[in-house]
Amino acid sequence: MLNSPTALDAADPLASFRDRFVHADEELIYLDGNSLGRLPRTTAGRVAAAITEEWGRGLIRSWSHWIDLARGIGDEIATGVVSARPGEVLVGDSTTVNLYKLAAAALDARPDRRVIVLDDDNFPTDLYVLQGLAAARGLSLRTVHTDIDAGLDLDVLRAALDEDVALVCLSHVAYRSGALADMGAVTDAVHAVGALMLWDLSHAAGSVEVPLDSSGADLAVGCTYKYLNGGPGAPAFVYVRRELQASLRQPIWGWFGQRDQFAMGPEYRPVDGIERFAVGTPPVLGLYGVQEGIRPVIEAGIGAIRAKGIALTSYAIEWHDEWLAPLGFRVASPRDASRRGGHVSLHHEDAWRICQALIARQVVPDYRTPSRLRLGFSPLTTSFQDVHDGLSRLRDLVVAGEHRTYDATPGRVT
Amino acid sequence: MLNSPTALDAADPLASFRDRFVHADEELIYLDGNSLGRLPRTTAGRVAAAITEEWGRGLIRSWSHWIDLARGIGDEIATGVVSARPGEVLVGDSTTVNLYKLAAAALDARPDRRVIVLDDDNFPTDLYVLQGLAAARGLSLRTVHTDIDAGLDLDVLRAALDEDVALVCLSHVAYRSGALADMGAVTDAVHAVGALMLWDLSHAAGSVEVPLDSSGADLAVGCTYKYLNGGPGAPAFVYVRRELQASLRQPIWGWFGQRDQFAMGPEYRPVDGIERFAVGTPPVLGLYGVQEGIRPVIEAGIGAIRAKGIALTSYAIEWHDEWLAPLGFRVASPRDASRRGGHVSLHHEDAWRICQALIARQVVPDYRTPSRLRLGFSPLTTSFQDVHDGLSRLRDLVVAGEHRTYDATPGRVT
Repeated sequence: MLNSPTALDAADPLASFRDRFVHADEELIYLDGNSLGRLPRTTAGRVAAAITEEWGRGLIRSWSHWIDLARGIGDEIATGVVSARPGEVLVGDSTTVNLYKLAAAALDARPDRRVIVLDDDNFPTDLYVLQGLAAARGLSLRTVHTDIDAGLDLDVLRAALDEDVALVCLSHVAYRSGALADMGAVTDAVHAVGALMLWDLSHAAGSVEVPLDSSGADLAVGCTYKYLNGGPGAPAFVYVRRELQASLRQPIWGWFGQRDQFAMGPEYRPVDGIERFAVGTPPVLGLYGVQEGIRPVIEAGIGAIRAKGIALTSYAIEWHDEWLAPLGFRVASPRDASRRGGHVSLHHEDAWRICQALIARQVVPDYRTPSRLRLGFSPLTTSFQDVHDGLSRLRDLVVAGEHRTYDATPGRVT
Repeated sequence: MLNSPTALDAADPLASFRDRFVHADEELIYLDGNSLGRLPRTTAGRVAAAITEEWGRGLIRSWSHWIDLARGIGDEIATGVVSARPGEVLVGDSTTVNLYKLAAAALDARPDRRVIVLDDDNFPTDLYVLQGLAAARGLSLRTVHTDIDAGLDLDVLRAALDEDVALVCLSHVAYRSGALADMGAVTDAVHAVGALMLWDLSHAAGSVEVPLDSSGADLAVGCTYKYLNGGPGAPAFVYVRRELQASLRQPIWGWFGQRDQFAMGPEYRPVDGIERFAVGTPPVLGLYGVQEGIRPVIEAGIGAIRAKGIALTSYAIEWHDEWLAPLGFRVASPRDASRRGGHVSLHHEDAWRICQALIARQVVPDYRTPSRLRLGFSPLTTSFQDVHDGLSRLRDLVVAGEHRTYDATPGRVT
């Protein structure tokens, strides 16, 4: 007999954080906080104040404090969300643009090496960025095969590493399976051949511990609109290890990375610190969204968030085994909680049709190819009751055959 | 005897647009709308609805309409703000990132040519981006000298053009002097040697006619937080002539430029249209800011805006001649209105101190090195009374010597 969701919620030390977020529709079970995190209650007010007071009244004079936001929020992320030091994280640009900047900087720092290593389960935009850089520079991509359910195999990665490798780029938590890579062991293996390691933290930041500091990781990019609740298209962040900053130069030379910016000198001379990875004018409204989004994460603490994430995903897998396995589902994520991030994927031959039927039942997951329902459990906003009820509705609709009325050709859900 | 500001305001067909924007402090005379445009009255409500309803209630499901915003607002800019066709403009990323993308794409399209032409009065971030691209590719920068008061000399530019030039990048309106380049004549000269022309429209869009279509311009980037009132750090836009799109590929290969994006295929295959210049997830809140900001511009019409811009800058120059020239000021902008955009710079040896004293008198200009007060007149929000009173306060403070109490070392004003 599985634990009752009521008892689990009653014992949950993070239960009160649910009320820090907007739940506009209490019927809705939202299992996609790993794709777009819920709206914090404070965000609308903070953005409204920024618009009305800082922009509307302060006008250009407000740049006297806007100018420090990207770095200040970066410091909050560095010390409260990932394990890094102040001055190592900067907010701005999209995850993809940031990945491009850091990957290019890393390749420039290893000019005699001709290979970029990645895995075939990395997020598509990461693959595309690296394909673009390799094409532009005549470099080779060495693509490691990763099992899309089990996640990265360290031995397979090691076999692909040699002294011709300039850069390795991988996801800390795999976008599809939720498999969690061993940041320390991977980084050690990469450093053993003298290459640089770039982590994509998009599905990790705000969900699991991200040991940038102790792992020796060189570079990372992260997304703020998933577990960090920054809002749709909120600006992303970069991490660059302090000791590397002076030796790296990113390719998009912009005025926000320029020493003595408002002297507007004729030659680009980047600043020494993390701001050398800045480019253009930062998106102020988006930055405030990020600041409000990370606040409850920092307050709850990543340790407690991670513990609840494990409990939520484990609970989902238990109900899967009880209810869904007999209906043709299979867990397409690691069953070992220590190797799993905050979401779980369930494989089913009819996943696309089931996804549409589930949304009609007021449960929002998302669909990922091939044939997977991806269920995101955001520890600050998802209850054990949500897990129980979401999977129960999923069982009921499949038993009732409701999905059979939907078009079977995968398209865009959301 | 100069015209009375009251009479000019009474006769101004755009006078009513002033009330479409927030004026939180009626004492303040804001002459920096060319740096950060005023807040439209509708923006706070629109962004609040996007946050509360679309994000808070709709959650991930709202991507079904967010996904088309960047292109839709691009089409509005194409047809209502600049002279271009639907499908030629896309909103997203910063101006600097966009400049990088388009410049790199242009250089890739002229692989046998080794020279980038620019002028030394282009905006610093443009210079830096081109320096970075030239350094990365081993290309030469050929820097044309432009008089920082008079603007680009077409004969000087022509002398720098030959068949080794891949790309020419210039500002349509110079950020310091406000000098307006002849888009058609310059583009013709550039095309005559087979090079591509990239325009920076930051100080032009929303202020003057931008004849992208009839000029034959190839590429452009523009800023939305100046005359387009999109808000601090609002996303910028790119323009790519339709006939060129298929032959150009930008360097940052991201999933928002990918064909059949949510199939998440393993190889980057960019879409055919303007979206191939997209990179990562678009900044949704910022996009709504842009949409509200361009609305009054489109409604007023660029023709009327341009006519009032000429009237405002001409009126400012008349008062300068009357009041300020005797106090050591000099107009550091073209006196011929057809060669001038929406702002006027005034040179004075003590400009930095005067700028600070003027702000203390509740008039906000900005300072631009060397020794210039830059006065921006945003036709939808600036009245003739503002021009009169702003210059009158400027005269009074200099006569009273109020600026002498300020530090003479230029720093950052705003």
